[in-house]
Amino acid sequence: MRIALLGGTGDIGEGLALRFARDTDHELLIGSRDPEKAREAVSEYEADLEHRGVDATLKGFVNEMAADRADIVVLSVPPYHVGDTVEAVADRLDEDTILVTPAVGMKGDADGLHYHPPGVGSVSELVANRAPDGVPVVGAYHNLAAGKLADLDVTFDLDTLVVGDDADAKKLVRDLSNEIEGLRALDAGPLANAAEVESVTPLVINIAKYNDDMHDVGVKWV
Amino acid sequence: MRIALLGGTGDIGEGLALRFARDTDHELLIGSRDPEKAREAVSEYEADLEHRGVDATLKGFVNEMAADRADIVVLSVPPYHVGDTVEAVADRLDEDTILVTPAVGMKGDADGLHYHPPGVGSVSELVANRAPDGVPVVGAYHNLAAGKLADLDVTFDLDTLVVGDDADAKKLVRDLSNEIEGLRALDAGPLANAAEVESVTPLVINIAKYNDDMHDVGVKWV
Repeated sequence: MRIALLGGTGDIGEGLALRFARDTDHELLIGSRDPEKAREAVSEYEADLEHRGVDATLKGFVNEMAADRADIVVLSVPPYHVGDTVEAVADRLDEDTILVTPAVGMKGDADGLHYHPPGVGSVSELVANRAPDGVPVVGAYHNLAAGKLADLDVTFDLDTLVVGDDADAKKLVRDLSNEIEGLRALDAGPLANAAEVESVTPLVINIAKYNDDMHDVGVKWV
Repeated sequence: MRIALLGGTGDIGEGLALRFARDTDHELLIGSRDPEKAREAVSEYEADLEHRGVDATLKGFVNEMAADRADIVVLSVPPYHVGDTVEAVADRLDEDTILVTPAVGMKGDADGLHYHPPGVGSVSELVANRAPDGVPVVGAYHNLAAGKLADLDVTFDLDTLVVGDDADAKKLVRDLSNEIEGLRALDAGPLANAAEVESVTPLVINIAKYNDDMHDVGVKWV
Protein backbone atom coordinates (compact mmCIF):
# COMPACT_ATOMS: atom_id res chain seq x y z
CA MET A 1 0.00 0.00 0.00
CA ARG A 2 1.19 3.52 -0.72
CA ILE A 3 0.67 5.99 2.09
CA ALA A 4 1.08 9.71 1.48
CA LEU A 5 1.64 11.89 4.51
CA LEU A 6 0.75 15.40 3.38
CA GLY A 7 2.37 17.89 5.67
CA GLY A 8 4.62 14.97 6.42
CA THR A 9 7.40 17.30 7.53
CA GLY A 10 5.33 18.35 10.56
CA ASP A 11 5.08 16.77 13.95
CA ILE A 12 2.35 14.15 13.55
CA GLY A 13 3.51 13.41 10.01
CA GLU A 14 7.02 12.71 11.21
CA GLY A 15 5.81 10.27 13.84
CA LEU A 16 3.54 8.40 11.46
CA ALA A 17 6.29 8.27 8.83
CA LEU A 18 8.84 6.83 11.24
CA ARG A 19 6.46 4.33 12.83
CA PHE A 20 4.99 3.14 9.51
CA ALA A 21 8.51 2.87 8.07
CA ARG A 22 9.82 0.87 11.00
CA ASP A 23 6.80 -1.37 11.62
CA THR A 24 5.29 -2.00 8.20
CA ASP A 25 6.27 -2.67 4.59
CA HIS A 26 4.12 0.05 3.11
CA GLU A 27 5.56 2.60 0.74
CA LEU A 28 5.75 6.05 2.30
CA LEU A 29 5.43 9.30 0.42
CA ILE A 30 6.23 12.45 2.37
CA GLY A 31 4.35 15.44 1.04
CA SER A 32 4.89 19.13 1.60
CA ARG A 33 3.87 22.33 -0.12
CA ASP A 34 7.59 22.70 -0.74
CA PRO A 35 9.02 19.55 -2.41
CA GLU A 36 12.53 20.47 -1.26
CA LYS A 37 11.33 20.49 2.34
CA ALA A 38 9.75 17.08 1.76
CA ARG A 39 13.02 15.68 0.46
CA GLU A 40 14.94 17.13 3.39
CA ALA A 41 12.52 15.48 5.79
CA VAL A 42 12.93 12.18 3.96
CA SER A 43 16.71 12.37 4.42
CA GLU A 44 16.28 13.13 8.09
CA TYR A 45 13.77 10.28 8.64
CA GLU A 46 15.90 7.80 6.71
CA ALA A 47 18.93 8.75 8.79
CA ASP A 48 16.98 8.23 12.02
CA LEU A 49 15.75 4.85 10.77
CA GLU A 50 19.15 3.76 9.49
CA HIS A 51 20.66 4.66 12.86
CA ARG A 52 18.21 2.09 14.30
CA GLY A 53 19.07 -0.54 11.73
CA VAL A 54 15.90 0.00 9.71
CA ASP A 55 16.53 0.09 5.99
CA ALA A 56 13.56 2.07 4.69
CA THR A 57 13.14 4.10 1.55
CA LEU A 58 10.79 7.05 1.73
CA LYS A 59 10.08 9.51 -1.02
CA GLY A 60 9.51 13.24 -0.88
CA PHE A 61 7.10 15.12 -3.14
CA VAL A 62 5.02 18.23 -3.33
CA ASN A 63 1.65 17.41 -1.71
CA GLU A 64 -0.21 17.07 -5.02
CA MET A 65 2.20 14.50 -6.40
CA ALA A 66 2.30 12.54 -3.15
CA ALA A 67 -1.50 12.39 -3.15
CA ASP A 68 -1.57 11.40 -6.79
CA ARG A 69 0.56 8.32 -6.17
CA ALA A 70 -1.08 7.14 -2.95
CA ASP A 71 -3.80 4.71 -1.86
CA ILE A 72 -4.06 6.41 1.51
CA VAL A 73 -3.64 10.16 1.89
CA VAL A 74 -3.13 11.41 5.43
CA LEU A 75 -3.79 15.12 5.95
CA SER A 76 -1.18 15.63 8.65
CA VAL A 77 -1.35 19.39 8.33
CA PRO A 78 -2.42 22.02 10.89
CA PRO A 79 -6.21 22.45 11.10
CA TYR A 80 -6.16 25.85 9.39
CA HIS A 81 -4.52 24.27 6.32
CA VAL A 82 -6.80 21.25 6.08
CA GLY A 83 -9.39 22.82 3.80
CA ASP A 84 -6.77 24.33 1.46
CA THR A 85 -4.83 21.09 1.33
CA VAL A 86 -7.90 19.05 0.40
CA GLU A 87 -8.66 21.54 -2.36
CA ALA A 88 -5.07 21.48 -3.59
CA VAL A 89 -5.07 17.71 -4.01
CA ALA A 90 -8.75 17.18 -4.85
CA ASP A 91 -8.22 16.31 -8.51
CA ARG A 92 -5.61 13.70 -7.53
CA LEU A 93 -8.12 11.78 -5.44
CA ASP A 94 -10.66 9.19 -6.54
CA GLU A 95 -12.90 6.53 -5.06
CA ASP A 96 -9.90 4.25 -4.55
CA THR A 97 -8.02 6.81 -2.46
CA ILE A 98 -8.81 7.02 1.23
CA LEU A 99 -8.44 10.45 2.78
CA VAL A 100 -7.41 10.29 6.44
CA THR A 101 -7.76 13.31 8.70
CA PRO A 102 -6.02 13.62 12.09
CA ALA A 103 -6.34 17.41 12.55
CA VAL A 104 -8.19 19.04 15.43
CA GLY A 105 -9.31 22.65 15.86
CA MET A 106 -8.32 24.06 19.23
CA LYS A 107 -7.98 27.40 20.90
CA GLY A 108 -6.04 28.14 24.02
CA ASP A 109 -6.36 30.46 26.99
CA ALA A 110 -4.85 30.68 30.45
CA ASP A 111 -6.83 27.63 31.61
CA GLY A 112 -5.70 25.32 28.86
CA LEU A 113 -6.70 24.22 25.41
CA HIS A 114 -10.30 23.96 24.33
CA TYR A 115 -11.97 22.15 21.48
CA HIS A 116 -12.81 24.64 18.76
CA PRO A 117 -14.42 22.81 15.85
CA PRO A 118 -15.36 24.37 12.53
CA GLY A 119 -19.01 25.27 12.02
CA VAL A 120 -19.78 21.94 10.38
CA GLY A 121 -19.10 20.21 13.71
CA SER A 122 -15.64 18.68 13.37
CA VAL A 123 -12.56 18.84 11.18
CA SER A 124 -13.32 15.31 10.00
CA GLU A 125 -16.72 16.42 8.70
CA LEU A 126 -15.18 19.52 7.14
CA VAL A 127 -12.80 17.27 5.20
CA ALA A 128 -15.70 15.07 4.11
CA ASN A 129 -17.56 18.15 2.85
CA ARG A 130 -14.56 19.44 0.94
CA ALA A 131 -13.46 16.10 -0.53
CA PRO A 132 -14.63 15.19 -4.03
CA ASP A 133 -17.76 13.03 -4.14
CA GLY A 134 -17.06 9.37 -3.66
CA VAL A 135 -13.69 9.78 -1.94
CA PRO A 136 -13.94 7.99 1.40
CA VAL A 137 -12.90 10.07 4.41
CA VAL A 138 -11.69 8.53 7.65
CA GLY A 139 -10.73 10.34 10.85
CA ALA A 140 -7.81 8.83 12.78
CA TYR A 141 -4.67 9.63 14.80
CA HIS A 142 -6.23 12.69 16.49
CA ASN A 143 -5.12 11.96 20.02
CA LEU A 144 -1.57 10.73 19.56
CA ALA A 145 1.09 12.89 21.19
CA ALA A 146 3.42 13.93 18.39
CA GLY A 147 6.54 13.89 20.55
CA LYS A 148 5.99 10.34 21.72
CA LEU A 149 5.03 9.19 18.24
CA ALA A 150 8.14 10.63 16.62
CA ASP A 151 10.55 9.26 19.21
CA LEU A 152 11.25 5.67 18.21
CA ASP A 153 12.95 5.12 21.55
CA VAL A 154 9.50 5.27 23.10
CA THR A 155 7.60 2.01 23.26
CA PHE A 156 3.95 2.79 23.80
CA ASP A 157 0.63 1.06 24.30
CA LEU A 158 -1.92 3.50 22.98
CA ASP A 159 -5.27 3.59 21.26
CA THR A 160 -6.39 5.65 18.33
CA LEU A 161 -10.06 6.12 17.50
CA VAL A 162 -11.21 5.79 13.91
CA VAL A 163 -14.37 7.37 12.51
CA GLY A 164 -15.83 7.16 9.03
CA ASP A 165 -18.96 6.54 7.02
CA ASP A 166 -17.38 4.07 4.57
CA ALA A 167 -17.07 0.76 6.41
CA ASP A 168 -14.43 -0.71 4.07
CA ALA A 169 -12.24 2.38 4.21
CA LYS A 170 -12.54 2.55 7.96
CA LYS A 171 -11.61 -1.11 8.31
CA LEU A 172 -8.60 -0.65 6.05
CA VAL A 173 -7.35 2.30 8.10
CA ARG A 174 -7.91 0.36 11.32
CA ASP A 175 -6.01 -2.65 9.99
CA LEU A 176 -3.20 -0.42 8.77
CA SER A 177 -3.00 1.39 12.11
CA ASN A 178 -2.91 -1.86 14.03
CA GLU A 179 0.31 -2.69 12.17
CA ILE A 180 2.08 0.02 14.17
CA GLU A 181 3.57 -1.59 17.26
CA GLY A 182 1.70 -0.70 20.42
CA LEU A 183 -1.11 1.06 18.61
CA ARG A 184 -4.67 -0.27 18.73
CA ALA A 185 -7.25 1.28 16.43
CA LEU A 186 -10.80 1.26 17.75
CA ASP A 187 -13.99 2.14 15.92
CA ALA A 188 -15.78 5.24 17.19
CA GLY A 189 -18.55 5.08 14.60
CA PRO A 190 -19.49 7.38 11.71
CA LEU A 191 -18.03 10.81 10.94
CA ALA A 192 -20.93 12.31 12.89
CA ASN A 193 -19.16 11.04 16.03
CA ALA A 194 -15.88 12.79 15.18
CA ALA A 195 -16.34 15.82 17.46
CA GLU A 196 -16.09 13.75 20.65
CA VAL A 197 -12.99 12.02 19.27
CA GLU A 198 -11.30 15.26 18.25
CA SER A 199 -12.07 16.95 21.57
CA VAL A 200 -9.87 14.43 23.37
CA THR A 201 -6.85 16.21 21.87
CA PRO A 202 -7.11 19.44 23.91
CA LEU A 203 -7.99 17.24 26.88
CA VAL A 204 -4.77 15.21 26.75
CA ILE A 205 -2.83 18.45 26.46
CA ASN A 206 -4.64 19.80 29.54
CA ILE A 207 -3.91 16.59 31.45
CA ALA A 208 -0.24 16.94 30.53
CA LYS A 209 -0.31 20.54 31.78
CA TYR A 210 -1.91 19.87 35.15
CA ASN A 211 -0.26 16.61 36.22
CA ASP A 212 3.34 15.78 36.93
CA ASP A 213 5.15 13.33 34.71
CA MET A 214 2.37 13.15 32.15
CA HIS A 215 4.08 14.96 29.32
CA ASP A 216 2.97 13.57 25.95
CA VAL A 217 0.17 11.62 27.58
CA GLY A 218 -2.07 9.45 25.42
CA VAL A 219 -5.17 7.40 25.93
CA LYS A 220 -6.14 3.78 26.38
CA TRP A 221 -9.80 2.76 26.42
CA VAL A 222 -10.06 -0.05 28.94
CA MET B 1 -15.66 12.79 56.11
CA ARG B 2 -19.38 12.72 55.34
CA ILE B 3 -20.22 12.19 51.70
CA ALA B 4 -23.75 12.78 50.45
CA LEU B 5 -24.71 11.16 47.18
CA LEU B 6 -27.75 13.07 45.99
CA GLY B 7 -29.68 10.96 43.53
CA GLY B 8 -27.79 8.18 45.23
CA THR B 9 -30.40 5.65 44.19
CA GLY B 10 -29.40 6.06 40.54
CA ASP B 11 -26.72 4.31 38.59
CA ILE B 12 -23.61 6.37 39.23
CA GLY B 13 -24.72 7.06 42.81
CA GLU B 14 -25.05 3.34 43.50
CA GLY B 15 -21.56 2.64 42.23
CA LEU B 16 -19.96 5.46 44.19
CA ALA B 17 -21.88 4.42 47.34
CA LEU B 18 -20.74 0.80 47.09
CA ARG B 19 -17.13 1.62 46.25
CA PHE B 20 -16.75 4.31 48.91
CA ALA B 21 -18.42 2.02 51.45
CA ARG B 22 -16.16 -0.90 50.64
CA ASP B 23 -12.89 0.96 50.17
CA THR B 24 -13.02 3.85 52.63
CA ASP B 25 -14.14 4.72 56.14
CA HIS B 26 -16.15 7.76 55.17
CA GLU B 27 -19.74 8.14 56.24
CA LEU B 28 -22.16 7.79 53.35
CA LEU B 29 -25.47 9.56 53.07
CA ILE B 30 -27.74 8.41 50.25
CA GLY B 31 -30.04 11.19 49.08
CA SER B 32 -33.16 11.06 46.99
CA ARG B 33 -36.12 13.33 46.36
CA ASP B 34 -38.10 10.53 48.02
CA PRO B 35 -36.60 9.61 51.42
CA GLU B 36 -38.31 6.22 51.35
CA LYS B 37 -36.55 5.43 48.08
CA ALA B 38 -33.25 6.51 49.66
CA ARG B 39 -33.80 4.15 52.60
CA GLU B 40 -34.70 1.28 50.26
CA ALA B 41 -31.48 1.87 48.33
CA VAL B 42 -29.51 1.89 51.58
CA SER B 43 -30.97 -1.53 52.51
CA GLU B 44 -30.08 -2.86 49.09
CA TYR B 45 -26.52 -1.50 49.18
CA GLU B 46 -25.95 -2.75 52.73
CA ALA B 47 -27.17 -6.21 51.72
CA ASP B 48 -24.79 -6.25 48.75
CA LEU B 49 -21.92 -5.15 50.97
CA GLU B 50 -22.78 -7.60 53.79
CA HIS B 51 -22.88 -10.40 51.23
CA ARG B 52 -19.26 -9.50 50.50
CA GLY B 53 -18.29 -9.36 54.15
CA VAL B 54 -18.26 -5.58 54.31
CA ASP B 55 -19.94 -4.21 57.39
CA ALA B 56 -20.96 -0.72 56.34
CA THR B 57 -23.66 1.55 57.63
CA LEU B 58 -25.17 3.96 55.13
CA LYS B 59 -27.99 6.36 55.79
CA GLY B 60 -30.89 7.39 53.60
CA PHE B 61 -32.35 10.90 53.52
CA VAL B 62 -34.27 13.28 51.37
CA ASN B 63 -31.67 15.18 49.28
CA GLU B 64 -31.90 18.37 51.37
CA MET B 65 -31.14 16.58 54.62
CA ALA B 66 -28.34 14.54 53.10
CA ALA B 67 -26.75 17.74 51.79
CA ASP B 68 -27.20 19.47 55.11
CA ARG B 69 -25.19 16.81 56.95
CA ALA B 70 -22.38 16.40 54.42
CA ASP B 71 -18.88 17.73 53.82
CA ILE B 72 -18.96 16.58 50.21
CA VAL B 73 -22.16 16.65 48.18
CA VAL B 74 -22.13 14.64 44.96
CA LEU B 75 -24.82 15.57 42.44
CA SER B 76 -25.27 12.07 41.04
CA VAL B 77 -28.51 13.02 39.33
CA PRO B 78 -29.39 13.08 35.62
CA PRO B 79 -28.22 16.26 33.86
CA TYR B 80 -31.74 17.64 33.48
CA HIS B 81 -32.17 17.51 37.27
CA VAL B 82 -28.81 19.07 38.15
CA GLY B 83 -30.00 22.69 38.21
CA ASP B 84 -33.13 21.88 40.23
CA THR B 85 -31.18 19.77 42.67
CA VAL B 86 -28.62 22.50 43.31
CA GLU B 87 -31.43 24.96 43.94
CA ALA B 88 -33.22 22.52 46.24
CA VAL B 89 -30.18 22.09 48.48
CA ALA B 90 -28.63 25.55 48.06
CA ASP B 91 -29.44 26.79 51.56
CA ARG B 92 -27.87 23.66 53.07
CA LEU B 93 -24.50 24.40 51.47
CA ASP B 94 -21.74 26.64 52.73
CA GLU B 95 -18.06 27.36 52.10
CA ASP B 96 -17.11 24.18 53.93
CA THR B 97 -19.23 21.97 51.69
CA ILE B 98 -17.76 20.83 48.40
CA LEU B 99 -20.24 20.32 45.60
CA VAL B 100 -19.16 17.58 43.18
CA THR B 101 -20.76 17.25 39.75
CA PRO B 102 -20.44 14.13 37.59
CA ALA B 103 -23.36 14.80 35.20
CA VAL B 104 -22.98 15.21 31.44
CA GLY B 105 -25.45 16.53 28.88
CA MET B 106 -25.80 14.23 25.89
CA LYS B 107 -28.14 13.67 23.02
CA GLY B 108 -28.40 10.57 20.92
CA ASP B 109 -29.17 9.76 17.32
CA ALA B 110 -28.69 6.77 15.05
CA ASP B 111 -24.91 7.35 14.96
CA GLY B 112 -24.37 7.37 18.68
CA LEU B 113 -24.31 9.78 21.57
CA HIS B 114 -23.10 13.34 21.24
CA TYR B 115 -21.97 15.89 23.77
CA HIS B 116 -24.74 18.39 24.34
CA PRO B 117 -23.64 20.91 26.96
CA PRO B 118 -25.81 23.63 28.45
CA GLY B 119 -25.36 27.13 27.05
CA VAL B 120 -22.83 28.05 29.73
CA GLY B 121 -20.40 25.51 28.25
CA SER B 122 -20.56 22.48 30.53
CA VAL B 123 -22.69 21.00 33.28
CA SER B 124 -19.85 21.65 35.72
CA GLU B 125 -19.95 25.37 34.94
CA LEU B 126 -23.74 25.37 35.16
CA VAL B 127 -23.46 23.94 38.66
CA ALA B 128 -20.88 26.58 39.57
CA ASN B 129 -23.22 29.31 38.32
CA ARG B 130 -26.18 27.95 40.28
CA ALA B 131 -24.30 27.17 43.50
CA PRO B 132 -24.37 29.77 46.29
CA ASP B 133 -21.37 32.12 46.31
CA GLY B 134 -18.38 30.66 48.05
CA VAL B 135 -19.37 27.01 47.72
CA PRO B 136 -16.54 25.25 45.90
CA VAL B 137 -17.61 23.22 42.87
CA VAL B 138 -15.58 20.31 41.56
CA GLY B 139 -16.31 18.19 38.48
CA ALA B 140 -15.45 14.49 38.80
CA TYR B 141 -16.60 10.94 37.98
CA HIS B 142 -17.97 11.93 34.55
CA ASN B 143 -16.50 9.09 32.55
CA LEU B 144 -17.00 6.10 34.82
CA ALA B 145 -19.27 3.40 33.43
CA ALA B 146 -22.07 3.01 35.94
CA GLY B 147 -22.45 -0.74 35.42
CA LYS B 148 -18.81 -1.45 36.08
CA LEU B 149 -18.73 0.92 39.03
CA ALA B 150 -21.74 -0.67 40.72
CA ASP B 151 -20.56 -4.24 40.25
CA LEU B 152 -18.15 -4.92 43.09
CA ASP B 153 -17.13 -8.17 41.37
CA VAL B 154 -15.37 -5.97 38.82
CA THR B 155 -11.80 -5.00 39.64
CA PHE B 156 -10.85 -2.04 37.51
CA ASP B 157 -7.92 0.21 36.78
CA LEU B 158 -9.48 3.46 35.65
CA ASP B 159 -8.89 7.19 35.73
CA THR B 160 -11.28 9.96 36.58
CA LEU B 161 -10.57 13.56 35.65
CA VAL B 162 -11.15 16.29 38.20
CA VAL B 163 -11.78 19.95 37.36
CA GLY B 164 -12.32 22.88 39.65
CA ASP B 165 -11.33 26.46 40.41
CA ASP B 166 -10.74 25.92 44.14
CA ALA B 167 -7.38 24.17 44.48
CA ASP B 168 -8.01 22.86 48.01
CA ALA B 169 -11.42 21.47 47.15
CA LYS B 170 -10.07 19.87 44.02
CA LYS B 171 -7.20 18.28 45.93
CA LEU B 172 -9.56 16.94 48.56
CA VAL B 173 -11.81 15.35 45.92
CA ARG B 174 -8.76 13.88 44.18
CA ASP B 175 -7.45 12.42 47.43
CA LEU B 176 -10.87 11.04 48.27
CA SER B 177 -11.25 9.49 44.82
CA ASN B 178 -7.82 7.90 45.00
CA GLU B 179 -9.07 5.96 48.05
CA ILE B 180 -11.30 3.91 45.75
CA GLU B 181 -9.39 0.82 44.70
CA GLY B 182 -8.26 0.96 41.08
CA LEU B 183 -9.31 4.57 40.60
CA ARG B 184 -6.78 7.30 39.86
CA ALA B 185 -7.92 10.91 39.95
CA LEU B 186 -6.07 13.25 37.62
CA ASP B 187 -6.25 17.02 37.47
CA ALA B 188 -7.73 18.42 34.26
CA GLY B 189 -7.48 22.04 35.37
CA PRO B 190 -10.11 24.69 36.12
CA LEU B 191 -13.86 24.41 35.52
CA ALA B 192 -13.30 26.13 32.19
CA ASN B 193 -11.77 22.85 31.01
CA ALA B 194 -14.82 20.79 31.99
CA ALA B 195 -16.38 20.54 28.52
CA GLU B 196 -13.57 18.38 27.16
CA VAL B 197 -13.79 16.16 30.23
CA GLU B 198 -17.55 15.78 30.02
CA SER B 199 -17.49 15.05 26.30
CA VAL B 200 -15.54 11.85 26.94
CA THR B 201 -18.75 10.35 28.33
CA PRO B 202 -20.64 10.09 25.01
CA LEU B 203 -17.36 8.96 23.48
CA VAL B 204 -16.92 5.96 25.77
CA ILE B 205 -20.53 5.00 25.07
CA ASN B 206 -19.86 5.21 21.32
CA ILE B 207 -16.72 3.10 21.70
CA ALA B 208 -18.77 0.51 23.59
CA LYS B 209 -21.34 0.54 20.78
CA TYR B 210 -18.92 0.10 17.88
CA ASN B 211 -16.40 -2.39 19.27
CA ASP B 212 -16.83 -5.95 20.45
CA ASP B 213 -16.26 -6.77 24.10
CA MET B 214 -15.97 -3.14 25.17
CA HIS B 215 -19.21 -2.87 27.10
CA ASP B 216 -18.83 -0.47 30.04
CA VAL B 217 -15.49 0.76 28.72
CA GLY B 218 -13.58 3.37 30.69
CA VAL B 219 -10.45 5.38 30.18
CA LYS B 220 -6.85 5.40 31.28
CA TRP B 221 -4.55 8.31 30.45
CA VAL B 222 -1.15 6.77 29.78
